[in-house]
Amino acid sequence: MSHNTFGHLFRVTTWGESHGPAIGCVVDGCPPLIPLTETDIQGYMDKRKPGQSKFTTQRQEADAVRILSGVMVDADGVQKTTGTPISLLVENTDQRSKDYSEIRDRYRPGHADYTYDAKYGIRDYRGGGRSSARETAMRVAAGAVARKVIPGITVRGALVQIGPHRIDRAAWDWAEVDNNPFFCPDRAAAERWADYLSGIRKAGSSVGAVIEVVAEGVPAGLGAPLYGKLDQDIAAALMSINAVKGVEIGNGFAAAELTGEDNADEMRAGADGSPSFLSNNAGGILGGISSGQPVVARFAVKPTSSILTPRRSVTRQGDEVDVMTRGRHDPCVGIRAVPVGEAMLACVLADHALRHRGQIG
Amino acid sequence: MSHNTFGHLFRVTTWGESHGPAIGCVVDGCPPLIPLTETDIQGYMDKRKPGQSKFTTQRQEADAVRILSGVMVDADGVQKTTGTPISLLVENTDQRSKDYSEIRDRYRPGHADYTYDAKYGIRDYRGGGRSSARETAMRVAAGAVARKVIPGITVRGALVQIGPHRIDRAAWDWAEVDNNPFFCPDRAAAERWADYLSGIRKAGSSVGAVIEVVAEGVPAGLGAPLYGKLDQDIAAALMSINAVKGVEIGNGFAAAELTGEDNADEMRAGADGSPSFLSNNAGGILGGISSGQPVVARFAVKPTSSILTPRRSVTRQGDEVDVMTRGRHDPCVGIRAVPVGEAMLACVLADHALRHRGQIG
Amino acid sequence: MSHNTFGHLFRVTTWGESHGPAIGCVVDGCPPLIPLTETDIQGYMDKRKPGQSKFTTQRQEADAVRILSGVMVDADGVQKTTGTPISLLVENTDQRSKDYSEIRDRYRPGHADYTYDAKYGIRDYRGGGRSSARETAMRVAAGAVARKVIPGITVRGALVQIGPHRIDRAAWDWAEVDNNPFFCPDRAAAERWADYLSGIRKAGSSVGAVIEVVAEGVPAGLGAPLYGKLDQDIAAALMSINAVKGVEIGNGFAAAELTGEDNADEMRAGADGSPSFLSNNAGGILGGISSGQPVVARFAVKPTSSILTPRRSVTRQGDEVDVMTRGRHDPCVGIRAVPVGEAMLACVLADHALRHRGQIG
Amino acid sequence: MSHNTFGHLFRVTTWGESHGPAIGCVVDGCPPLIPLTETDIQGYMDKRKPGQSKFTTQRQEADAVRILSGVMVDADGVQKTTGTPISLLVENTDQRSKDYSEIRDRYRPGHADYTYDAKYGIRDYRGGGRSSARETAMRVAAGAVARKVIPGITVRGALVQIGPHRIDRAAWDWAEVDNNPFFCPDRAAAERWADYLSGIRKAGSSVGAVIEVVAEGVPAGLGAPLYGKLDQDIAAALMSINAVKGVEIGNGFAAAELTGEDNADEMRAGADGSPSFLSNNAGGILGGISSGQPVVARFAVKPTSSILTPRRSVTRQGDEVDVMTRGRHDPCVGIRAVPVGEAMLACVLADHALRHRGQIG
Repeated sequence: MSHNTFGHLFRVTTWGESHGPAIGCVVDGCPPLIPLTETDIQGYMDKRKPGQSKFTTQRQEADAVRILSGVMVDADGVQKTTGTPISLLVENTDQRSKDYSEIRDRYRPGHADYTYDAKYGIRDYRGGGRSSARETAMRVAAGAVARKVIPGITVRGALVQIGPHRIDRAAWDWAEVDNNPFFCPDRAAAERWADYLSGIRKAGSSVGAVIEVVAEGVPAGLGAPLYGKLDQDIAAALMSINAVKGVEIGNGFAAAELTGEDNADEMRAGADGSPSFLSNNAGGILGGISSGQPVVARFAVKPTSSILTPRRSVTRQGDEVDVMTRGRHDPCVGIRAVPVGEAMLACVLADHALRHRGQIG
Repeated sequence: MSHNTFGHLFRVTTWGESHGPAIGCVVDGCPPLIPLTETDIQGYMDKRKPGQSKFTTQRQEADAVRILSGVMVDADGVQKTTGTPISLLVENTDQRSKDYSEIRDRYRPGHADYTYDAKYGIRDYRGGGRSSARETAMRVAAGAVARKVIPGITVRGALVQIGPHRIDRAAWDWAEVDNNPFFCPDRAAAERWADYLSGIRKAGSSVGAVIEVVAEGVPAGLGAPLYGKLDQDIAAALMSINAVKGVEIGNGFAAAELTGEDNADEMRAGADGSPSFLSNNAGGILGGISSGQPVVARFAVKPTSSILTPRRSVTRQGDEVDVMTRGRHDPCVGIRAVPVGEAMLACVLADHALRHRGQIG
Repeated sequence: MSHNTFGHLFRVTTWGESHGPAIGCVVDGCPPLIPLTETDIQGYMDKRKPGQSKFTTQRQEADAVRILSGVMVDADGVQKTTGTPISLLVENTDQRSKDYSEIRDRYRPGHADYTYDAKYGIRDYRGGGRSSARETAMRVAAGAVARKVIPGITVRGALVQIGPHRIDRAAWDWAEVDNNPFFCPDRAAAERWADYLSGIRKAGSSVGAVIEVVAEGVPAGLGAPLYGKLDQDIAAALMSINAVKGVEIGNGFAAAELTGEDNADEMRAGADGSPSFLSNNAGGILGGISSGQPVVARFAVKPTSSILTPRRSVTRQGDEVDVMTRGRHDPCVGIRAVPVGEAMLACVLADHALRHRGQIG
Repeated sequence: MSHNTFGHLFRVTTWGESHGPAIGCVVDGCPPLIPLTETDIQGYMDKRKPGQSKFTTQRQEADAVRILSGVMVDADGVQKTTGTPISLLVENTDQRSKDYSEIRDRYRPGHADYTYDAKYGIRDYRGGGRSSARETAMRVAAGAVARKVIPGITVRGALVQIGPHRIDRAAWDWAEVDNNPFFCPDRAAAERWADYLSGIRKAGSSVGAVIEVVAEGVPAGLGAPLYGKLDQDIAAALMSINAVKGVEIGNGFAAAELTGEDNADEMRAGADGSPSFLSNNAGGILGGISSGQPVVARFAVKPTSSILTPRRSVTRQGDEVDVMTRGRHDPCVGIRAVPVGEAMLACVLADHALRHRGQIG
């Protein structure tokens, strides 16, 4: 048994392995009559695709997405969704299966090699197979569709920490995010990171990171307590991304250190009768329901497990070996996790937006 | 629309408001032939129930659980599950609705008052209604059933931080957890916390906390990539608990600061042929699947929003007011969140254990 | 594993055994702000409850329903739904467990005795336990809530065949349905049935029946192809009722005998611009989506398996025995299946009405 | 919102339109280590594909299925499932979109044209788009995978009625099914049908049919009462097939006419200790759970709505028109529904077999 679908009303099912002929997804539940072309999706694919800078894996993939179903050109010549499932497909073009033959029987520490074997008794060792971050390409594709479902909501992300180096939050400038290879909102930090990560890369090492994703324009009322809470679904969506080990909303773990006085987001009367919040410690979610403030989430990714330094391990047969991972790898998977995190947040919000319509009729 | 069920094969649906006649849950998917009595559940209920020390709310509830269905006394006189849904019910006995009348139209900062109103246009203001932590009693009840489904797995929890004060992890002693009112595994820390939290309580203030839950005896192979990952489901389960703002697995956010060399859990050949891990940075989960190591998760709760210090807010009608919450409250909801966190972890593991059986036949 | 929930957005989870302390259900997903009291539900309960005539079981149950959660009296004194789960409970008061002791180890032919044992290895033999038609009381309760979700839709049912005796469809008069103990819309047929069924009853025998349920006022557009088709969900809902062996929509099995010319429902321009259909062979559903015509479904129930004539069977231990079922039974379960069928149709329509809102926003 | 997935543990998501570039499905939840090649699937595809005789549509499609993910060649050179989602794709090669242009704005009676428009406000009119029976090709593909999950169960189907002409059940011979273009198990009936259906075809007319599907080797214990009953899921699966208007299990609607004495399936002690049934009126299911007897289901399909005789209808704009459907059509869709019905039954049984494993550990 496996579970390759996320979402409830806006549902995404992904399939495909790193080194198979293609990867793809089916987006089910997208409302009809939404203009949608491959171009709408491709821009986000390009943001995530490998080989964009020396700081990401050098695998070359065009990641050209094709829409195989669920759209139709209407009488006005505009291609629109029809309400039927949208099948998206990306061909794999730069598989180098030979790179991986030597790790067929070796469990790479930090990877899912052993656990897939323990679960399934068989595993596609070529490039990590299904556990490869290559699957996240389809999350980004689905996220691009999700964004069209919630046109009033803006979802953006940024890298806020790489290894021990954090940004200066006071220097946050969204405009900087696309000006450096890190999606870093702090220009000075990005410059420092370039030096730092170059060193990591040259040493064949890797390092973890923290990504922040923010959704603005979220109306109050999204979320379904108690077990369809908006923050619960965001936590699940972000934790499902490869290498993620922690998720937090608003103040997150820092909230543990605060008193009730400091943590409360006070309110004053807003212009339109709804409350105007004076702070956003809650990250835009109270009791599992959006408050109308920006939804703010962060997630931590561990360092890439593929490194050049040998690590002790065992084989499928139980023999002790040293494992060293050559291949092509990201020195920091956190960079390409930025568009992936945005996509997952967009998908969750699209799903909840549709659920919310179902209720208030 | 609301979503009051969690779990896939082991499914729990909770219902009830803080000040209604009763709260309850239906546990569906529990295998048959498991001995189960109310006594099996009551011990866990008592651990969570209010009024156990001066550090928790003084609301008095026996939290006596009744099993209304799904069990039968067999020919040997042993009450066992029958495979049909188990209905559990707890009567509310100490509702003091008068305490809450003054906040009927006032949005308490940090609470879900405004967001429930924004979503539903109506809200049960008595004691927080459905958003009250009282609902967590049924999570604990369900968790007690879950534990019986996975008899080989031990699930335990502890408070590891209260406000800015953390335990000394070197002093961790599980035996201490039940010797202090904080479920603290560090005796010396517990003593310091008593003074600290007394001050908080007397000031009518509150403070956040971090809880750690650990499952030992988890077999390798639980978890269903990619969107039924074990860590994804744990993140969702813990984030769904009231006041939780962050969740992490294994090293969690600290993993962001590590290099690949430091983060890798190396392996040597184990006695039974399976790998023996030399560390557990991963928290027992790789690629969304359990590795056979202990599963380790932590979650942060924000400070109780009910405090004596007035906070600025607005009314339903849009008038600006100051809100001060009298009533009976926990100065640190993190304490009673320990058995709740354990219960959620047990439910997730029971669910995945049943899913895993479905696969490997 | 068991599955005791039906519905997607309007979800009903039932629990309870025939001879346990109570039965109940949780209705999750009901929109807020709908006026709802126990009185709204009780009328439907009374229609289904046993002992209403000599043609149904003589078990005496008040079937008094209690609402334990999910409603609140608003400022105007009107009790309304709050959007949180609605817990409904009915106490069992007339259990006579002694009646059933002799069949504890005997598999009654036609009943689920053997199959429950084969599946679970344990079974509540008292009155059929979970497999008893007593569970259908909670379907009726849930259906009463469902009706309030779709106020513009009228759901009605009638018995159209009992044993080999069918009604004269030309004589159909909805007003007659409540004038006889069979929910029969044909006055003359009801009179004949009274004699016929009296004979069956006195002989300790039983007989099958066919029920027709009709929903008027269903808007066009409900249903979600391909695997959430309205007729698919109706088929599932009706087939899930005890003793049901067949379900059909519109012309149903008779459609097999028709040509395309005869079966087509032709259309003319309607007053409001939407098509006006000249016939309703389709039973109001085309391609899984409602057409705006009345939704018409029929289902067949087999004869009650509890009869006085001995039947050959075996025991749990494999011994051959003759089984004769005394106890209190319905000579035709089809009668009380009428309100149950209505309830299921109402639940499906409420569910699809909410789903539809989610889409077209 | 749409719902294009069926199954719970063995889940199939289909996508694609009649005249798009391709159709496909994702089979999720298939256990690992099952040998699976395209050849295993293609045989079933060929049975369903169009153009096999003059009695089915003359559209020419190779229906060549490709496996894009979820399998891997193991060390022994055998291609096996890996437990990850299996993506299957079939290219559309014989689309003739020009055939359909004239019905773009016309609602064909009996088709889903109007209802799709009513629901979505847009519809792919080319060959019926998503509502085309072309989608059933992927059901057959998924069913081929399902059969491999339940190797001990044999699923077969036959056409038992075409228009008013039924088979002689005494003449049933499974070996005949593949000897005629109707999947008819009665040789003499098949000969008569050939004449009858030739007449229908030449007249540009169409006719309905009844299909029977049978599963042998089903172990006792499959099915999950109350709302995951095996017969409920079969009813849903069969009703979801295009043009189906009725479903029955075992005696089905005929059970309504029987007495309890006649309908009971008596039992004697079987060789292995389990009961040996003396008849199978129940169709192998009691209380929603399989009894170990063959599972028998029948479903009725209406006549193809595409006929040459003009029928009255309206356009999207509300103008009254006559509609006559040229194009390429099946005079009796019941024929090609045989392999589709088998596939759906196989999928339901695979799903329940996996669920059952989940429970009894």
